[in-house]
Amino acid sequence: MNFDWLASPPHVLDEAARVAATARQAQLTKPPGALGELESLTIRLAAMQGTECPEVDPVWITVFAGDHGVAVEGVSAFPQAVTGEMVKNFARGGAAICVAARSLGARLEVIDLGTVTDLSGLTGVAHLTIGSGTANFALEPAMTSEQCARAINAGRQSAERARLAGARLYIGGEMGIGNSTSAAALSCALLGEAPEQLAGPGTGLDQEGVGHKAAVIARALERHGYAQAGGAGGVASGLSVPDGGGGLTDDLQGRKAREALARLGGFEIAALTGAYLACAKMGIPVLIDGFISTAAALAAERICPGTVAWLIFAHVSAEPGHARLLAVLDAKPLLSLGLRLGEGSGAAVAVPLLRMACALHNEMATFAEAGVSERE
Amino acid sequence: MNFDWLASPPHVLDEAARVAATARQAQLTKPPGALGELESLTIRLAAMQGTECPEVDPVWITVFAGDHGVAVEGVSAFPQAVTGEMVKNFARGGAAICVAARSLGARLEVIDLGTVTDLSGLTGVAHLTIGSGTANFALEPAMTSEQCARAINAGRQSAERARLAGARLYIGGEMGIGNSTSAAALSCALLGEAPEQLAGPGTGLDQEGVGHKAAVIARALERHGYAQAGGAGGVASGLSVPDGGGGLTDDLQGRKAREALARLGGFEIAALTGAYLACAKMGIPVLIDGFISTAAALAAERICPGTVAWLIFAHVSAEPGHARLLAVLDAKPLLSLGLRLGEGSGAAVAVPLLRMACALHNEMATFAEAGVSERE
Repeated sequence: MNFDWLASPPHVLDEAARVAATARQAQLTKPPGALGELESLTIRLAAMQGTECPEVDPVWITVFAGDHGVAVEGVSAFPQAVTGEMVKNFARGGAAICVAARSLGARLEVIDLGTVTDLSGLTGVAHLTIGSGTANFALEPAMTSEQCARAINAGRQSAERARLAGARLYIGGEMGIGNSTSAAALSCALLGEAPEQLAGPGTGLDQEGVGHKAAVIARALERHGYAQAGGAGGVASGLSVPDGGGGLTDDLQGRKAREALARLGGFEIAALTGAYLACAKMGIPVLIDGFISTAAALAAERICPGTVAWLIFAHVSAEPGHARLLAVLDAKPLLSLGLRLGEGSGAAVAVPLLRMACALHNEMATFAEAGVSERE
Repeated sequence: MNFDWLASPPHVLDEAARVAATARQAQLTKPPGALGELESLTIRLAAMQGTECPEVDPVWITVFAGDHGVAVEGVSAFPQAVTGEMVKNFARGGAAICVAARSLGARLEVIDLGTVTDLSGLTGVAHLTIGSGTANFALEPAMTSEQCARAINAGRQSAERARLAGARLYIGGEMGIGNSTSAAALSCALLGEAPEQLAGPGTGLDQEGVGHKAAVIARALERHGYAQAGGAGGVASGLSVPDGGGGLTDDLQGRKAREALARLGGFEIAALTGAYLACAKMGIPVLIDGFISTAAALAAERICPGTVAWLIFAHVSAEPGHARLLAVLDAKPLLSLGLRLGEGSGAAVAVPLLRMACALHNEMATFAEAGVSERE
């Protein structure tokens, strides 16, 4: 599989559109800055879309599902069978993301990347089965390089379908029992953080369960050769790694991030990473959901620095590690509603904010048009 | 004008519907609590609407406009003529709330309660002119009792039109240069707080301007006989005032709150107060906008304790005093986006969150329907 595309830089933001949108905001009939973060949001979207007046429809949503070998370690409040059962729920339209997508009029596709349940006969879902779930990363790499590459590519292909459909906003969702353990482990490896900082209750572990989860992650990090908090062995200690002077080069950092993704990630996390990378390179704005999605965003930023400029962070979730990942990415989430469902649902909830921001920006009268006096 | 209706209690919340909605949430195919505040929101709406499955459409929006005599004290960053100019902008559909209402498919009406500009010929706006703006409350009461009563009644009539139109959610908006000064003064009088705690930049005062605004409010509070922070002369020092034991009775508290509203409020603030009171008594959920609207909500709660149970707070605005008013009302706002525009715009921005919360609650499959395993 050819990975040359990973090395190409993100699409260049349109500075002229950013300037034009900023000037437009200043002329709308409201006190300067009175629409708060909705103003900066439209200005960012304008720069991404290369137009003074951005729009977010059509919205495209892909949910990636996959099982996690690490589930056998007892790291989730729900049984592993739930991954497959929820894929069936997606197919029937009963899951939260299905309701949200219908409510938004957004296109939704569901990709089965491999579960312990055989879903091959299930219609309404695309089957790109990479394996019957990942291997248990507490014992061995979750994926082979080939499997990880296939998962990244599945994400890229989803982004390309979105582009062909004319999508102006991409949302990636995920389903996989055990994937908050995988996301925490991956993030620990990328950041050099201790598992206690990033392991949380996920779908509903109690305090003892969270402690066990952190211990499983700690064991895995040691096995795979990733040092912990403050150690020198993390893939990198910050977002901006100098190209010389003792830091890792972008290329080496990228290869190390891909290796961490294969060792500790999951099919759906790697697919999200691939989708975010591809969207950034093609110039499609991405709305990021919760903890798992943000871990994939972190991996994408490490693989191709600058990707984060194409990512809008929908919310900070109830999963305690999410705020830490957002801080590392210098991301300011739009919502803080204690959501912790995944599936892309938190991003879907934020879509109307983007729509409203664009409507206000595009349709409000200017001071001159309305004959309204400006400030004294 | 008969004000007996003010003494009637708020509509009783439906506890059976609350229980049914809570039980429904627990059965939906997601980890318990995973939809965070969207869950408590739908459960509240269910209790308000008396149904297991609430909805918020049709949404009704009324914007009340009025001028403020205190504007001559130089308390706003914008000239007073802007109130009338913005009413014309509402009539033409160019203001933020017009764009938002169109975008939401919500009914919008605009009520001119009296501006310094003669707007009587303007179509597309209802004219219930109470005066050419209020008097300067730095020198004398802003309104006579009769004017305040007419303004409260204008709000009540708006709520009644909403009810006749079948509205399931009411939003009140406001426009009036100087009204953040009025809202701060009223709140200081109701809470016994110092002006420095509640006076803020409004449409864009600098630090010096905010200091001047606080000084104008302090002078007015003294003139009208309201003591400041920690003093004993505030209308009441907390939301729950005991009926005996030295506190004010509800009735006395209510009369004192109405007096403060007349002395320091504005036409549009009194109208919002009346609308919120009427909605609570008729059983229509209200979505509250920013600082001015929340000051009106505080007055409504003081006039008729229990009103706040019918109010959903859309956001915490950039106006510094807003967070304090929300805390006093024990309100947890849905959004924090640095909005500070008024007109009801912040409430309008939050409407899709309520819609999405209801859609998820009403349309998601249950564990039994979907054949998904529950937690271990």
